Amino acid sequence: MTQDELKQLVGKAAVDFIEDGMIVGLGTGSTVKYMVDYLGERVQKDGINIVGVSTSKRTAEQATNLGITIKDVDEVDHIDLTIDGADQIDKNFQGIKGGGAAHLWEKIVAINSRRNMWIVDESKMADELGSFPLPLEVIPYGSKQLLKRLDAKGYHPEFRMANGEHVLTDSKNYVIDLHMGKIEDPHALAADLDSMTGIVEHGLFLDLVNTVIVGREDGPEVLQAR
Amino acid sequence: MTQDELKQLVGKAAVDFIEDGMIVGLGTGSTVKYMVDYLGERVQKDGINIVGVSTSKRTAEQATNLGITIKDVDEVDHIDLTIDGADQIDKNFQGIKGGGAAHLWEKIVAINSRRNMWIVDESKMADELGSFPLPLEVIPYGSKQLLKRLDAKGYHPEFRMANGEHVLTDSKNYVIDLHMGKIEDPHALAADLDSMTGIVEHGLFLDLVNTVIVGREDGPEVLQAR
Repeated sequence: MTQDELKQLVGKAAVDFIEDGMIVGLGTGSTVKYMVDYLGERVQKDGINIVGVSTSKRTAEQATNLGITIKDVDEVDHIDLTIDGADQIDKNFQGIKGGGAAHLWEKIVAINSRRNMWIVDESKMADELGSFPLPLEVIPYGSKQLLKRLDAKGYHPEFRMANGEHVLTDSKNYVIDLHMGKIEDPHALAADLDSMTGIVEHGLFLDLVNTVIVGREDGPEVLQAR
Repeated sequence: MTQDELKQLVGKAAVDFIEDGMIVGLGTGSTVKYMVDYLGERVQKDGINIVGVSTSKRTAEQATNLGITIKDVDEVDHIDLTIDGADQIDKNFQGIKGGGAAHLWEKIVAINSRRNMWIVDESKMADELGSFPLPLEVIPYGSKQLLKRLDAKGYHPEFRMANGEHVLTDSKNYVIDLHMGKIEDPHALAADLDSMTGIVEHGLFLDLVNTVIVGREDGPEVLQAR
C-alpha cells in the first residue's frame, strides 16, 4: 500500500469511533483531511448528528464545505473526542505536533477534550522524540533575541520560512523549529520552554493522548495509551 | 505634593541614570511618560546621544515626537538599562505589571536588558503582591474555557473589557485579570501560569528589577534591589 492509502484507511478507522450526538474536535493535517472526508460522508449519507470543533481555519473550511456544523471551542460546553494527527509519537505516547504550524489551537482543543485520539502512519512512531524538529509558536516582537537565547541553550533553533518570509500561524505569530535530534527528557524541556518569555506554545503534547491509530502495512492498529 | 508632582520628580530622577551613548528600554505608563518627556529635553538641549527601545506603540510615538531615535528590540545588540513603571512591588522587589496591557512587550524588553529600573509613586509599594489584580495576556481562541479553568483553580479571573469589548494588547490578544487579593508564593504561581496553554504571558516580573525609584512625600528614594 502507498502511504496515502494507509492514511485513508486510518482516517476511516478513526471515524468509527465517532458516535451520533458527539462534539468532536477536528485536527489538522493530511491524515485528518481523509478522516474529515469520511466524516462528511457519514453526516451526509447516514445522517448522524455531530458538532465539529476545529483547530485551524483550513479544517474549518473543509468541514463546513462537507456540511459538518463547526463551532468555536468557546461555543461548546465540552468536547467528547478530538481526533488529530501527530508529527512524532514516542514509546510512552508523548508527542510532537506543529509541523503544520497549527499546534497552538490544536493544544487548546486537546486540553479541552475528554478524550484525544491521534491518527498517524507508522513513520511517525519512534522510540524517542526529537528527530522531528520541535515547533515553537513565538511572538514576533523580540523573536531574534529569543532565537539567540534558544541557541545559547543548545536547542538548535531555526525560524520557519517560506519564500523568504516568516511562516505565520493563525494567530499571526512566527514559528521556530528546534532541531534537537534527541529529546532526553520531554517534561523537563517543556517546563524550560514554558518559562521562557516570548514562546506562546511549544509542540510537546505530553500525557494528553488516549488512543493512537497507526497505519501499518497490514492495516490500522489501535493502541490504548492511557 | 500631588501624586502627579511626585511622578514628575521620579521621572526626572530616573533620567539622571541615563548616560550618553546608552541603549535605553523605555517602558509604558504615566510615570514613564514624564521620564520620556525629560529624556526628550536632554536629547534636544544637551545633545546626548541615546537609542530608545520601546515597549509599546504609544511610548514609541511619544519618544519619536520628541526626537528620540527608537529601535526595535531585535534591531539592537543589547539594552543597557530599561526604565519602566510597575503596578505593585513587594518587599522582596518582585513586581506586578500589565495594568496598561503592555506587559508582554515590557517583559520581552526587560529580559533583554542588562539592568532594569522601576519608577513608581509610593502607593505601588506593598508587603505582598496581589491586591493589584494580576494581568494575563491570553490567546482569544479558547479564552472562555481558560477563564473557567482559572476560576476552578480559585484565581478569581475576569476578562478586561472597555465599552463592552475585550481590551486588546498590541499583539491583538485579550487580557484576563486575576483578583487574588494576596499572592502567597509568586514563583509557584508563575510556574503554574507558565504551564497553562493559552496564556501568552503573565504580569509577574520576578527577580528582574535592579533599582527602584519611589516617589516619597519628601522626594524620590532610590532603592537597590539586587
